[in-house]
Amino acid sequence: MDSFTSRYLPFTLLALVMFNMGFAQDKARPSDKKIEKLISKMSLEEKVHQLATQYPNANMRLGIPNLSANECLHGIKMDSATVFPQAIAMASTWDTELIERMGHTVAKESRAFGIHQCYTPMLAVVRDVRWGRTEESYGEDPYLVGKIGSSYIRGLQGMGAERFDENHIMATAKHFVADGEPMAGDNGAAHDISEYTLQNVHLYPFRMAIEEAEVGAIMPAHHLLNGIPCHANKHVMQTVLRDEWGWDGLVVSDNGDMRSLKRVFNYVPDYEHAAKKGLEAGIHQELALFQGWSDHRMFGDYLISAVNKKIVPVALVDDAVKHVLQAKFDLGLFDTDIKNDERFDVLKNPDNGEPDKVSQHDAEMFKKALYVGIPKKDWKKTVFDQSHNDLALEVAQKSIVLLKNEGDLLPLKKEKYKKISVVGPNGKAMRLGGYSPDNPKYYINIVEGIQNYLGSDREVAFEEGCDFTDSTANIPKAVALAESSDITIVAIGGSEETCRENEDRDDLSLPGPQQKLVEAIHATGKPYVVVLLNGRPLSIEWIAENSQAIVEGWYLGQETGKAIANILFGKVNPSGKLPITFPRNVGQVPLFYNKLETGRPRQIYNSDPEPLFPFGYGLSYTSFELGEPRLSNETIAANELTTVNIPITNTGTRSGETVVQLYVHDVLSERVRPQKELRNFKRVALKPGETKQISIKIGAQQLEYWNDGKWTIEPGQFDIMVGLDSKHLKKVALTVKN
Amino acid sequence: MDSFTSRYLPFTLLALVMFNMGFAQDKARPSDKKIEKLISKMSLEEKVHQLATQYPNANMRLGIPNLSANECLHGIKMDSATVFPQAIAMASTWDTELIERMGHTVAKESRAFGIHQCYTPMLAVVRDVRWGRTEESYGEDPYLVGKIGSSYIRGLQGMGAERFDENHIMATAKHFVADGEPMAGDNGAAHDISEYTLQNVHLYPFRMAIEEAEVGAIMPAHHLLNGIPCHANKHVMQTVLRDEWGWDGLVVSDNGDMRSLKRVFNYVPDYEHAAKKGLEAGIHQELALFQGWSDHRMFGDYLISAVNKKIVPVALVDDAVKHVLQAKFDLGLFDTDIKNDERFDVLKNPDNGEPDKVSQHDAEMFKKALYVGIPKKDWKKTVFDQSHNDLALEVAQKSIVLLKNEGDLLPLKKEKYKKISVVGPNGKAMRLGGYSPDNPKYYINIVEGIQNYLGSDREVAFEEGCDFTDSTANIPKAVALAESSDITIVAIGGSEETCRENEDRDDLSLPGPQQKLVEAIHATGKPYVVVLLNGRPLSIEWIAENSQAIVEGWYLGQETGKAIANILFGKVNPSGKLPITFPRNVGQVPLFYNKLETGRPRQIYNSDPEPLFPFGYGLSYTSFELGEPRLSNETIAANELTTVNIPITNTGTRSGETVVQLYVHDVLSERVRPQKELRNFKRVALKPGETKQISIKIGAQQLEYWNDGKWTIEPGQFDIMVGLDSKHLKKVALTVKN
Repeated sequence: MDSFTSRYLPFTLLALVMFNMGFAQDKARPSDKKIEKLISKMSLEEKVHQLATQYPNANMRLGIPNLSANECLHGIKMDSATVFPQAIAMASTWDTELIERMGHTVAKESRAFGIHQCYTPMLAVVRDVRWGRTEESYGEDPYLVGKIGSSYIRGLQGMGAERFDENHIMATAKHFVADGEPMAGDNGAAHDISEYTLQNVHLYPFRMAIEEAEVGAIMPAHHLLNGIPCHANKHVMQTVLRDEWGWDGLVVSDNGDMRSLKRVFNYVPDYEHAAKKGLEAGIHQELALFQGWSDHRMFGDYLISAVNKKIVPVALVDDAVKHVLQAKFDLGLFDTDIKNDERFDVLKNPDNGEPDKVSQHDAEMFKKALYVGIPKKDWKKTVFDQSHNDLALEVAQKSIVLLKNEGDLLPLKKEKYKKISVVGPNGKAMRLGGYSPDNPKYYINIVEGIQNYLGSDREVAFEEGCDFTDSTANIPKAVALAESSDITIVAIGGSEETCRENEDRDDLSLPGPQQKLVEAIHATGKPYVVVLLNGRPLSIEWIAENSQAIVEGWYLGQETGKAIANILFGKVNPSGKLPITFPRNVGQVPLFYNKLETGRPRQIYNSDPEPLFPFGYGLSYTSFELGEPRLSNETIAANELTTVNIPITNTGTRSGETVVQLYVHDVLSERVRPQKELRNFKRVALKPGETKQISIKIGAQQLEYWNDGKWTIEPGQFDIMVGLDSKHLKKVALTVKN
Repeated sequence: MDSFTSRYLPFTLLALVMFNMGFAQDKARPSDKKIEKLISKMSLEEKVHQLATQYPNANMRLGIPNLSANECLHGIKMDSATVFPQAIAMASTWDTELIERMGHTVAKESRAFGIHQCYTPMLAVVRDVRWGRTEESYGEDPYLVGKIGSSYIRGLQGMGAERFDENHIMATAKHFVADGEPMAGDNGAAHDISEYTLQNVHLYPFRMAIEEAEVGAIMPAHHLLNGIPCHANKHVMQTVLRDEWGWDGLVVSDNGDMRSLKRVFNYVPDYEHAAKKGLEAGIHQELALFQGWSDHRMFGDYLISAVNKKIVPVALVDDAVKHVLQAKFDLGLFDTDIKNDERFDVLKNPDNGEPDKVSQHDAEMFKKALYVGIPKKDWKKTVFDQSHNDLALEVAQKSIVLLKNEGDLLPLKKEKYKKISVVGPNGKAMRLGGYSPDNPKYYINIVEGIQNYLGSDREVAFEEGCDFTDSTANIPKAVALAESSDITIVAIGGSEETCRENEDRDDLSLPGPQQKLVEAIHATGKPYVVVLLNGRPLSIEWIAENSQAIVEGWYLGQETGKAIANILFGKVNPSGKLPITFPRNVGQVPLFYNKLETGRPRQIYNSDPEPLFPFGYGLSYTSFELGEPRLSNETIAANELTTVNIPITNTGTRSGETVVQLYVHDVLSERVRPQKELRNFKRVALKPGETKQISIKIGAQQLEYWNDGKWTIEPGQFDIMVGLDSKHLKKVALTVKN
């Protein structure tokens, strides 16, 4: 991984050479001849059925199997599947090995459900938290997004001999590209981004997903990028992705966005040209799910006439079909006897009542979404495996971020607080975040989690206090409960309603009267802990100043209450770190730690320009002390490595884990670089009093940046910085020789 | 003007050809030989004194005169000068002829003060109103900014034979480029902007200032543009400005920003290289005003050693000197006998006490700023000319925007309201905005304006109610006054403290407890009018919904109170139009009317995505009806013109003026264009019942856009839209033939 660039550059050069010689993307594979032969036998209609996801893309006549896709944002989005913590929480673990394990498990469940591909992960580098899809992201840092994303992909797809085997699926990195920087957080915004930022920030995690995880598929973004829709943007889809990077995987459109070329952007004169532009940009399959749309299927409804009218050359269609069939070969689907695919009969006649070869449960799933797979006979054995639940709990516990703990209120001693109560709209409600199954396997809410922890002999009372509407009528009940309790857990935050796709916010305060609820509980003078479940950072300045303890949970999946209880009572020591900055108020955004050096120090009238909680921040029940960083070699050549060594000591009285973070600044460069950029990190576990020496290698991936067409390491001075968050860093100077 | 592009393109091509042949910028002028001869005689020190503004740049030995520069943002920033309305108010007039007249007047006063150049206008296209410099701008639209800016420049500089004559000065368009799009409104932000937006939005008004007003000087912006400081950015400073546009005027650095190349951005290893990078980017003069800086003068303190160390070739210095001397020749300064410049003695020894050849008043001005000029003997005759005050009043009256007038509360009948009072922090305070003289000629506040209007027999009582600090103690006094009055003018908004350079906001609500003041006055049930004086749009959603009448004045200059009174009592019918969108809340920004078509309709949780008041909006005491637009020719070739004709009728009972606005949408284009872009406008005056036919020509300037290296008119359909604001438009289709 440290030789990222050195491995990557020759590859690019080779790809460029090949491209210039006219045979780019022409790496011969064993399946090539079979695919060629198949295509030669296919009618135009049969070809189009491979490209339009609303049709069954199996083909009995030619023995072509079906490829089923679904969402795996935090578990496979199928009823009864294991629900893991939401993406933003996954990123809060800063644990790549853990997330890779999660990927293997999600892939296994997916295959059990008959799913071969997922439209996951989202590699958006989120720079405006007003955006409703913030929850689906791995935060604001290109490196962290790339590392967490690649880890998940490696798990989903497998690597080496495991890749795309019967326990793994094809991942789809999305949305290509720059979806995380929507103006004013508007999901429909037109994005305007320089090539400099595009390459160093937004393309960065995709490049990593290709290089470090060999991602199989990519999905374009739905927005305009510098005036050109991503779904027709040859610059990013061809020049960067294929010509520069040499990637040749499957490209699937985002839902309905081929239609948007005409309907939303009016970028083409008609739908046939929409099909053409998409194919020209290298889109192989069109996702167009909603049955209610009468004119939404470019490949399905307009491609045949586009070919017949000679708007689209058939060679473009064949190339797309080739990529779809290649994916099916890669996933081993041709090895399955298509005649045994009971689902095919169902799909042929979706309206002919209950099919007799599949179960009632399966049939209902098919009706819900035509594109889901057919579960294996023994799917329940896989999905209900207890180890999957244990893993979901482990991810949840490691993703919880302790934001404040004044006077060591936490962890709670259950003996000390006789009556422990819960108030707030997130105390009992199920909060799983977007792209969760309609009917998850189970959900342990916070009240249940605490109740289970304390045991049945102790009652955990609950009052909602308020929901996300305006009514404050029930706040007094919550206050009364708090007054009668020894300690209160205030479970607040957001929900799928307040933070979701296609609906953004112009406000980052707690939705509804939750702020009033907290202030009322605070006014009782009784101790309380704020527990947040939400999809995006909230502007909780008052709470940060006034409340004694704050636990950020994001959405924690099916084990929410158990994980929260284990943290609150100290069974588990919190170790999550923020993957995204918490602003003080909505007027501060866009606000992210790795912005370019600014011209002048920021001054804001009557306000503080600093964030509320910085990127990388998160407390522990123990304390850690980081020593001075030392370099194994303070001067290196651009193609050499050095190592930064840092002693870290657990100076507290509990065992704990934390994340040592490495930041780099290229001090003098042709284009100005951010003052600090995350370029590596290591999770470390320490017993009380224990000291470990952390060694982190520094090479091309740490030092390079993109400028004027190439990735480069400029000779000169670099600041190498280490810390336990992005704000408090210790620095050592590295010189790269000419 | 309609043939903007057709005139411009050959010019560009010629410039490019010349550049390629190696003699770009080599247009011979009569002064060339003189300048060459002078330079050959100058020592390196003498050369450097031409480039470093902290030194007197006159030179007795060679007879080189001094060039004095100052600010003319809304009048020359000299004590006793006429203070016109702030820039954002100038733009609200939408009256190019008026602003050009204003320019002539400001230039005349400037010359009377001995000033030859101004660091004005600011051509920022402001897309984030949190930015403190919003008040200094002409708003959010590139065309309006370009037109108002060019008109002002034409007035300041003169055109044809008048250009740079003894009544005109050199204007400096700033800040080059894209200063109006700071991330989160942060004046120190690093800007990231695609070439597409750079050309169509931010470079646009500069191109117009060169083409339509022949602007003499340009000042770079202080920010990083895509990672490169503008002060060292060859792409914009050389490739675009000189090579593509063929412009060859004077370039002056912004204050201290040559130093920033090292100190802030660390873009160069040392200050000598800062001097080099600046010269290479084509900066001729360094502005470095603050005396407290010990190491701030790149040209003054480091250029000589940089030349001696061969870091900077002397030819680069000579080229910069050439441009400075050229400006002095162009401004006719060599025609003045340098020996008669009394100021020279003063400048040689700024610390040697009171000079005997100038008045006490002048001497104090010199001490304040070394760079001010020496006033002519009869400067007072010019500056105290009553016609200048009349013009300031005219601009003020035309810039006032009537935002709401429910139930025709306005204009006020002075007979109807026996007791008229004023409350609010802007009732008596002087609100002039940034870059105003420390001691203006005079200022008529709102209370005085109303008092003067009503006459001395009627008392106008005043209570401040609150200022911009948190205290609400005086609100009851204001409420008591309102309760005892027949009508109350609530004079609120901002000040130089709440909206200013180098201090931005993360909030757009009324500063201090002003919102509470309005709500308390509202609660009295007595009629009231909200009058706003402020530098940026404020999020006055509650007021817009609840108050009956709202008058937006921005900062109206020395005649503030008189202009407000004339509008309130109907002596003048309001006709100003918003040059910038009013958002509902800070969470909506960036919000501007001409954003690119978005991917999906905007949805915001619990909020309205529409602006509070749209661009181009403004009411009148009369009503206007716009008829259907008709084209003289519905199909044209790209090099042809057509005319849109629109009947407009004054359907009310008062004479009035309004602004007919023309918007264009290129319906199908290689890059997606905004749904509407202002491309022309006409102010029109109509008597009650009168109808006029408005004719607006449509040619290259209306139809072209920049894409992939060139300005182009793409054949196909264009929507031609007319209206009295940007929201309510009538459309007619134009076809441009292949």
